[in-house]
Amino acid sequence: MENNCMELTLKETCAFLKERDNFTLLCHGQPDGDTIGSGYALAYALKQLGKKARVLCCDPIPLKFHFISNALEQDDISEAEETVIAVDVADNKLLGSLNEKYGSRVELCIDHHISNVHYSKLLLLDSDAGANCEIIFEILKVLGAKFDRHILDAIYTGITTDTGCFKYSNTTSRTHTISAELIDLGVDYAEINRIMFDTKSRSRIKLEGMVMDRMEFHFGGRVALIAITREMIEACKATDNELDGINAMSRTIEGVMAGVTMREKEDGRFKISLRTNAPVDAMKICKTFGGGGHPRAAGCEFKCSPDKIKEQLLPVIKETLEEQGCLI
Amino acid sequence: MENNCMELTLKETCAFLKERDNFTLLCHGQPDGDTIGSGYALAYALKQLGKKARVLCCDPIPLKFHFISNALEQDDISEAEETVIAVDVADNKLLGSLNEKYGSRVELCIDHHISNVHYSKLLLLDSDAGANCEIIFEILKVLGAKFDRHILDAIYTGITTDTGCFKYSNTTSRTHTISAELIDLGVDYAEINRIMFDTKSRSRIKLEGMVMDRMEFHFGGRVALIAITREMIEACKATDNELDGINAMSRTIEGVMAGVTMREKEDGRFKISLRTNAPVDAMKICKTFGGGGHPRAAGCEFKCSPDKIKEQLLPVIKETLEEQGCLI
Repeated sequence: MENNCMELTLKETCAFLKERDNFTLLCHGQPDGDTIGSGYALAYALKQLGKKARVLCCDPIPLKFHFISNALEQDDISEAEETVIAVDVADNKLLGSLNEKYGSRVELCIDHHISNVHYSKLLLLDSDAGANCEIIFEILKVLGAKFDRHILDAIYTGITTDTGCFKYSNTTSRTHTISAELIDLGVDYAEINRIMFDTKSRSRIKLEGMVMDRMEFHFGGRVALIAITREMIEACKATDNELDGINAMSRTIEGVMAGVTMREKEDGRFKISLRTNAPVDAMKICKTFGGGGHPRAAGCEFKCSPDKIKEQLLPVIKETLEEQGCLI
Repeated sequence: MENNCMELTLKETCAFLKERDNFTLLCHGQPDGDTIGSGYALAYALKQLGKKARVLCCDPIPLKFHFISNALEQDDISEAEETVIAVDVADNKLLGSLNEKYGSRVELCIDHHISNVHYSKLLLLDSDAGANCEIIFEILKVLGAKFDRHILDAIYTGITTDTGCFKYSNTTSRTHTISAELIDLGVDYAEINRIMFDTKSRSRIKLEGMVMDRMEFHFGGRVALIAITREMIEACKATDNELDGINAMSRTIEGVMAGVTMREKEDGRFKISLRTNAPVDAMKICKTFGGGGHPRAAGCEFKCSPDKIKEQLLPVIKETLEEQGCLI
């Protein structure tokens, strides 16, 4: 597939967009702020140019992004005419249920993932971009788009969510320079950040509370351990969506080198997520139990009670911490 | 006092710094990242110029800022020679126990608070700066400082903490432009943000857990209410420092228009903090009970049990919500 994929420059991409019409813009499944922001910002700009455009995603747009998507009038586009573009989609498999119809028909992909599998005919790949919306911003400038409220909302949301509000290591000086421009253009960044980062559902708050309240510490606080049972999830009426990021909680505690999250699945098995700080090797520990992953984030599964899991898991973690000189 | 205070430009401030020596730099009490970052960045730069400098604060520098303060060799400076400068200190009262000795001897104040009371002989006031460290950055550029690791750490920490990691409405395009420069200069922003925003103490986690777990909702979720008793604080071994920001938690929940935090003081009285979303007037509600504050954040005190407080407070909140059409 890779052989048939031609990489474009930013300028060539803009020429392609100007030339074509009837755009179907595809976001990846389980859409985040960056794919949604990319799709909608581009759609709004193309419509400014008098073109037809629509944005499709195999999953519904989460409620908190509706302020971005709500204002778009989705055009009807016939299959014969459509120009198919994927935004922030590294692999056509990530199109989910749209893959069957569109996976092999993507004419242009605009992406920032170095892992992009070159499934599209044309590709604008800029892996230096912290967020895909940084590339979209640059495209829109070349296209001469008017940065109205909808476009500003979409682009800023993509940038701030994908970089963890400028916190994560994918943030670059370009991320900040573009954000400075967006602020000068009048984006309501404080409100967007409030919605993205300072708003939690009641179920999420309830679940976080339970999780923190019941968190266990072992080996002088070097290991934090939490169990999330079906009972807890049901008591909080939490959806799977609302469990996002829970695995990262334990490692954020002062002094913790390894954070274990044991989450009960619907079939009663426990999915273990292990997050570690350097030099503790999470992958090595999980491999002992038939799992795998990365050095700082790995996982495995158990088919027994939390107590039985701890009996097996904790000695292995302890041994690794001792080897690395992390136990005092 | 105001009559004797002369405002300086950035250039004049730099000329003053170059001319003088033996700097005692004062931070405000209960020091935050911005006053600490300002003081230490300026001290490191002045020492690069071959001058003597030290940083003083009435309170200890919190542990998480030690990576900024640790590398400074504090010079001995005699009272007769010293040039006293206050950084990020809007009022000499904020010098705490240092006010008696230094409050009326501050030669220069470098500040970004519009509320500055002009207590110093000379004043560089730039209230457009989101963080005071933005001003310090500009001073250091004029002074020709070498932006080494210590200075970068200090300035970035001040900026990111004072703007809530670029989340709050005091962030400007200048904040982002300076941060872009700091990243190009090599600041380890991801690690700094991890320490500042993604690290919590065990006591804090425990307390947050209790608070969330026990949070009450009233009036269809429009009001969130939490009580923090001495018993809870003691059970978590939390210090007053670790209670920072707890008052803001309730208002971050989806649908909540008024968040009430009732915190038991050592004398058994309860301090009430009320945070609201527009248009609910927190100040008006608290005034009913002899308190005061701002429209979105106000407070009052009660000398009875949480249940008795709720009996009095909730009807008044309900009435205000009804008046504003916030009850469904």
